[in-house]
Parts: sequence; structure tokens; C-alpha cells
Amino acid sequence: MTIPIPTVKRFPSYLRILKQAKDGGKKYISATTLAEELDLNPIQVRKDISSTGIEGKPKVGFCIDELIHLIVHILGWDNTSDALIVGAGSLGSAIARYDGFEAYGLKIVALFDKDPAKIGSRIGRFEVLPIDSINAFIAEKRISIAVITVPAVSAQAVADLLVGCGIRGIWNFAPKDIKVPPSVVVQRTDLATSFAVLSVKLGRKIAEQEGAESDDELV
Amino acid sequence: MTIPIPTVKRFPSYLRILKQAKDGGKKYISATTLAEELDLNPIQVRKDISSTGIEGKPKVGFCIDELIHLIVHILGWDNTSDALIVGAGSLGSAIARYDGFEAYGLKIVALFDKDPAKIGSRIGRFEVLPIDSINAFIAEKRISIAVITVPAVSAQAVADLLVGCGIRGIWNFAPKDIKVPPSVVVQRTDLATSFAVLSVKLGRKIAEQEGAESDDELV
Repeated sequence: MTIPIPTVKRFPSYLRILKQAKDGGKKYISATTLAEELDLNPIQVRKDISSTGIEGKPKVGFCIDELIHLIVHILGWDNTSDALIVGAGSLGSAIARYDGFEAYGLKIVALFDKDPAKIGSRIGRFEVLPIDSINAFIAEKRISIAVITVPAVSAQAVADLLVGCGIRGIWNFAPKDIKVPPSVVVQRTDLATSFAVLSVKLGRKIAEQEGAESDDELV
Repeated sequence: MTIPIPTVKRFPSYLRILKQAKDGGKKYISATTLAEELDLNPIQVRKDISSTGIEGKPKVGFCIDELIHLIVHILGWDNTSDALIVGAGSLGSAIARYDGFEAYGLKIVALFDKDPAKIGSRIGRFEVLPIDSINAFIAEKRISIAVITVPAVSAQAVADLLVGCGIRGIWNFAPKDIKVPPSVVVQRTDLATSFAVLSVKLGRKIAEQEGAESDDELV
């Protein structure tokens, strides 16, 4: 059975609650409890859980250890994936220094750039490597995931290079859509767009409120 | 006229192309060119542009300077917003060190934490400030935007505190949905969920391909 992507998106939250319950000494959890903790519909939660193949015990619920194990396995977080970063600018450096990805199985193992001024310099625990050496590195270390943090203008060229080197999954932080063959998966995280949405919604909210206040004054 | 959020989401990409064209010495741009550069439907691009209120010149297109000015203004990126970060852990530190937000009008001015071991330490250009002082800080500096980078378990308490201090916009990087009053805007960026989706899609793609290869062998 193929688990729907919206379910996959909820799994990290389930995992968090399951681990909290486990740390609190619990062995079983009900779909209702999970639904309440996450403010989700219990029917949805039951469907999501049943997609893992686990069976609950009546009046007891689901075995927490078993459910954690299944979800971690479905997410592929039980196998750490080595990944590299291309682009040692401000964002690439921030991501290279961030060590939180390992908790969900993503281990950054190298940081590449094309700028001779950056190559050889240290960023966090990495020495910036020359982009010319990326093909050999990917082949030798059998890397399948890359994080792109180059400027928009270079994003497609870097994606083409990575695909040519055999990369299968790209996490694209560059502010540009990239095109890849159907055998490659791309996930986009665009901080500029997220902030644009926050910024515009906030502006509207403030305008609304100011409008409401002037209306009050007219009364 | 209220500009639809999907249009707002495309504006940062339009801006990027417009600035490139301007740097290349151009004064006018057509909707068709924009659409081609971004691989969008030209009709969509025309609708998006007309939502800014700009009028194009027949056979010449839209004045690039004017369009940049309007989009920047709509996004609110002509006014830099001061923002603070709550949570000086690994992710908060990475974001505090990242200086790319200023390009779109978000200026991080302070970094707070509740951990006495972190308070007073330096992270990038910030000294970590005690969370107890956040109310006075927000009032004095008239901050309206906060970035939350605390663990999931503390996210709601921090959001409540921020709302109580008068924060109006929250960019939530904590892996948890937070509840706020209707006068407050929340934008969520969840790196764990993004990576979960990448990870699962990649696993499926690899399984598909391996399946296809074994089928080949059977022929």
C-alpha cells in the first residue's frame, strides 16, 4: 500500500508525540489521544495509523514502540542518508552549521562551492570543497541526496551537474524552481516566499485592525 | 483590491527576474518574457501583474522600475521589519547567523533564550538575551515580528508569551502547530516535514526503478 503524502506529512508530528509519551513511561497510546495532542480529526489519525499496518488492541490502543518503529521505517529515518550541500554562501553556511537534521536521518557530510575564495575555508565542521571534485566525491561516498543553497541564477546548472553525478534527491533552498528528470525527486523550501506571505498577511491584518479602529471613532 | 496569496507567492520570483533584467540594462519587460523565464502561464503572469495596478505599454511591456517598486511595496519589503528570534538552539543559531533575510526586509535584531547556560553567550553578532527581558525589549523597540525556534514542547508557551507582549506576526520553525488569536498571523516552516516528504518520495522512486530493473531482467 502506498501511504498518501498528506499522511507522510503528519508522521513527524506523530513521532514527536509518541516519543514524548514513551519518555513519560507509557507503553500504549490511543488514536484519540494522538488526535487531541495534535488537534487533528480522530478518524484521520486512525486512517493514518492503519496505513502503517499496525493493529491496535481494543481499549488499550497502539503499542508505542511498535508504532515509532514503523513510522521511522516508513520515513526512512532509520537509515541515515549522507547528503552534501552545494553553495557555501550565507544560507549554505547556516545549514552546514545546523546539526538538527541528524535527528531525522539526514547527515550532511560535505560542503561544496565554486568560489576559489571560499574553497579551503572552514565553515562549522566542514572545509569547503571545490565543485570540480564533486563527481568523484559522490561516486566514492555513494551520496544520493544534495541540498542546493546557491543563488537562483546558478540553481539549474547545479541541479544539472548533480543529476549528472547520480544524485537522486534534491532539497532545493535556492529561490528558483529547477527542472530534473522524472527519476529524481525535488523538495523545495523557499524562505523568501514564506516570508513574503507572512509579510503581506501581517500588513493586511494591521490594516484591517486600523480600519476597524477608525470605524469605532466614527461611531 | 486584495491580491490573492498565490500571486503573492509568485512575486518574489518576479522580483528576481525583474532585477536581473534591470541589471542587464533593460527598461521594459513583457509578461511573455516573465512567463518564459519562470515557466509560468503567460495569462497567469498578466493577471498577477495587473493586480499590482500597473499598466503596460503596447508592444513595449511593463516599466521594470515601476513594477519592481510596486511589488516591493506590496510585499512590504520597502520597510525593513525588525524581528527577534526566540530559541538559541541549533536552528535558532543558524538563523541568527544567516544574513540573507535583510534582502527582503526582515532584520533580526535580537536572540532570546530561557537557558541560563546560553544567556550572555555570543552567537554570530548577537548576545543571547534572557527571555524575562523580552516584554520590555518588544515594547521599547516596537517589534511586531518574532521567529520561533524552540523545541516543539515549548512552542505554544512561547507563542502565548509573544502574543501577550504584542507580537503580531510569528514565523514558526518549531515542529508544532501553534494557536494564536485571530489578530496574529503565523507562517510555518517545518524542515522535518519537508525532509520527510523528500525522503519518502525518494525511497519510492528508488523502489520503482529497482522494480523496473528486475522486470527487465525477467524479459
